[in-house]
Amino acid sequence: MERKEISKAVLKRLPGYLAYLQNMPEGSVPYISATALANALGMGEVQVRKDLAMVSDGGRPKIGYLRERLIRDISQFLGYDNTTDAILVGAGKLGQALLGYGGFETYGLNILAAFDVSPAFGYTEEGKPILLMEQLESFCCANQVLMGIITVPAEYAQQVCDRLIAAGIKAIWNFAPVHLEVPEHILVQNENMATSLAVLSMHLQAHMKEKK
Amino acid sequence: MERKEISKAVLKRLPGYLAYLQNMPEGSVPYISATALANALGMGEVQVRKDLAMVSDGGRPKIGYLRERLIRDISQFLGYDNTTDAILVGAGKLGQALLGYGGFETYGLNILAAFDVSPAFGYTEEGKPILLMEQLESFCCANQVLMGIITVPAEYAQQVCDRLIAAGIKAIWNFAPVHLEVPEHILVQNENMATSLAVLSMHLQAHMKEKK
Repeated sequence: MERKEISKAVLKRLPGYLAYLQNMPEGSVPYISATALANALGMGEVQVRKDLAMVSDGGRPKIGYLRERLIRDISQFLGYDNTTDAILVGAGKLGQALLGYGGFETYGLNILAAFDVSPAFGYTEEGKPILLMEQLESFCCANQVLMGIITVPAEYAQQVCDRLIAAGIKAIWNFAPVHLEVPEHILVQNENMATSLAVLSMHLQAHMKEKK
Repeated sequence: MERKEISKAVLKRLPGYLAYLQNMPEGSVPYISATALANALGMGEVQVRKDLAMVSDGGRPKIGYLRERLIRDISQFLGYDNTTDAILVGAGKLGQALLGYGGFETYGLNILAAFDVSPAFGYTEEGKPILLMEQLESFCCANQVLMGIITVPAEYAQQVCDRLIAAGIKAIWNFAPVHLEVPEHILVQNENMATSLAVLSMHLQAHMKEKK
């Protein structure tokens, strides 16, 4: 139980390290130390050192990690090199943006198709199929899809979630602003934009008060 | 310090309560108790009771809260009734999806305009202007904009962030998968989809191992 907690915290920090390493300017030195990384990200040195040691054994005293190798080790640890097939339900604006967003392939996510109650279009600009909801179960089964992305309005999210689980989905990425009821072995990751907005809005309210 | 920690944790739970209350079916009973809410969301009763008591004094013993009033009190507490004007930088697919997403108005967010290096289009489908980056500073100043949304590629995010801060922005909602350096009085809220994907991917890896 204790170990699981630690892992999840580390897991949440790793993509940040990776993004920083991947976005270092061309011509940066090939080695980076935990100290340099911690300073760049404004984080504690001890924590960064421990995190990196958990995912890579490439660190050398006084030199640090070869950047390319550290990128590879973190990516492997996060499973970004094993591509995960997913489907998306709800081909509205947000759904179409996610479908069209090329960046997910970097993270090992491959959205095979979208489903909608009225897929008037047939295919996205990128050539991904938008299928009828009736085809959901057979498609998931035939393609052994394990991940589902929910981008339908809040009031339809639970019924979509239930259908995904019945179709064999084990992990759900939920963009609908609603709590989903799922069995214990199913993971739901909420992308709760409302929470982010609340945090930002609170900060601005505090700022306005200070000004008065 | 202690109080601040508690507030942030509460803050993160409140949008979940609100979403549930707002999505209850038509014809539900007008009152809801902390116990009922806790059960519906699979949360601890004591925690929900404390959270609600912090934002509303409308709770009555054995009856609970009038749902409409609780919705109003949580919305007010979260600042959803004070509309915040924001601008968005980066009118690519994700940026356009956010611009076109009607749901943000429910949370008090009003995106006035988008900025891009090559705004070939001029206006979005919804009639929001897409302006040249050169106009960023004068627009923010004239409209006293305090919130900026960053949806540019990672390699441009820091320079956009610096320009936003120079233009008077106090809170940044960052969708670029990169760590931003900001002065202490500026709040950055990261919408880190890479982290979500890592969590989902780990769960699926564990699931695959179990099956073997």
